[in-house]
Amino acid sequence: MRTFVLPVLIGFGDCDPAGIVFYPNFYRWFDTATHQMWRSAGYDIERVRRETGLIAGPLVETGASYRAPATHGETVEVHSRVSEWGAKTFRVAHEIRRGPALLVEGFEVRIFARPHPEHPGRLQAVPVPEDFRQLFGAP
Amino acid sequence: MRTFVLPVLIGFGDCDPAGIVFYPNFYRWFDTATHQMWRSAGYDIERVRRETGLIAGPLVETGASYRAPATHGETVEVHSRVSEWGAKTFRVAHEIRRGPALLVEGFEVRIFARPHPEHPGRLQAVPVPEDFRQLFGAP
Amino acid sequence: MRTFVLPVLIGFGDCDPAGIVFYPNFYRWFDTATHQMWRSAGYDIERVRRETGLIAGPLVETGASYRAPATHGETVEVHSRVSEWGAKTFRVAHEIRRGPALLVEGFEVRIFARPHPEHPGRLQAVPVPEDFRQLFGAP
Amino acid sequence: MRTFVLPVLIGFGDCDPAGIVFYPNFYRWFDTATHQMWRSAGYDIERVRRETGLIAGPLVETGASYRAPATHGETVEVHSRVSEWGAKTFRVAHEIRRGPALLVEGFEVRIFARPHPEHPGRLQAVPVPEDFRQLFGAP
Repeated sequence: MRTFVLPVLIGFGDCDPAGIVFYPNFYRWFDTATHQMWRSAGYDIERVRRETGLIAGPLVETGASYRAPATHGETVEVHSRVSEWGAKTFRVAHEIRRGPALLVEGFEVRIFARPHPEHPGRLQAVPVPEDFRQLFGAP
Repeated sequence: MRTFVLPVLIGFGDCDPAGIVFYPNFYRWFDTATHQMWRSAGYDIERVRRETGLIAGPLVETGASYRAPATHGETVEVHSRVSEWGAKTFRVAHEIRRGPALLVEGFEVRIFARPHPEHPGRLQAVPVPEDFRQLFGAP
Repeated sequence: MRTFVLPVLIGFGDCDPAGIVFYPNFYRWFDTATHQMWRSAGYDIERVRRETGLIAGPLVETGASYRAPATHGETVEVHSRVSEWGAKTFRVAHEIRRGPALLVEGFEVRIFARPHPEHPGRLQAVPVPEDFRQLFGAP
Repeated sequence: MRTFVLPVLIGFGDCDPAGIVFYPNFYRWFDTATHQMWRSAGYDIERVRRETGLIAGPLVETGASYRAPATHGETVEVHSRVSEWGAKTFRVAHEIRRGPALLVEGFEVRIFARPHPEHPGRLQAVPVPEDFRQLFGAP
């Protein structure tokens, strides 16, 4: 199970009046890390969409625990890997670290989907494609 | 247990290339809803800080489940209430609704804190103040 | 020349460590105000795109002057109107006010465009459509 | 006049339903670039504040012209330098480039300030400090 690492420089405007990262920004970095994980592994979600009609990555659930704060001027790292596989879902585990210190622990549960055949504008979950499973370490 | 309601007009830039709300924005609205809940009830966190030294609201954990998407031009409502009380934590439950439809269900676990007496720059959780508990419906 | 007004509640996370609005957020509100101006006047940019192929609103230039700060918990108003008409551009003037006080004065210069016939992925500006000009007060 | 370069990986959520960068994010990166320019040159605005009471950087005016779009997954560079010196202002010129292509050209006019001696909560501009002028290339 490969882990991908995304460095993030924390901006002044990423911080709130308490002087620390405004928490929704951690989720923004989770999302960027997931997309960068896909790219780093050569998985191109736009090509997949064109060739198979499948939409990679709609979100089912997300969450995060905050251990220690971070502030502007610091560079942190988002460490990401696919940590769990469901029939139609996969879970990306994210850790935000500053050097050895674990600051935030979070996750995203995502699906693969296609446009729902009966309800226009809605999506329908499909089994996670086999090539994706293999690329990101499914057993 | 009072529920507070915050209307939010979804901006074009709140949505991503899939045309729907970029999920970290839901957390941004959760945070705004919590602060507005405090204000609506007359709880002024800046006055509390000045008078008692207590910091209202550092985050311990957050999470959300996504039921249905929303897009720009829509006005949604964040329904918020304190749903659980711990010794040193409280949990704010948020629902994002568009009319009768539940779109997102989420929560924030927050604490009250004071500057840590021994570790400069860190916080120490304290019991949730009684006046806050009463104002937001603790049993 | 009609002026449109959009109220905005400033969130805690819209403010930076100095405790005042992080300036890119003013531009975010300008953009939301422009889109809401279109909607309020019944101009549906998605229908226009479907029916004419024209893309409403790509940006050419923006700018802002900051007169006085604003902070979280305050509700400000964005006052917006189309203030200038070019052959292929229009300028939206925005003022952000808190009661009678002018806080920020800004603008967006936008165009109408269609996909460039020779350069895939690029846009080509076209004359601003007459129905749009009339709706927003061109002379 | 030294130029500082900040690389930025464009996130999926930095883009809007048109699939390109939502323009306020360019300003967000301008601000981060200015702060990083200060840090890179060893100018610590928090130390300056503690030692002199001066506040580095409140904004007077900003602006940008958009030449070509950018999208998620691309890494762009913000090239920044102090381009003009006023009695009490300085102008930071920013260019956002993707390889050789100039995408956005923008600026920030900023001041140095201290708390206004007569109007609590307001700022008063002061002459730009000599050490700052020398560090960033004033004539």
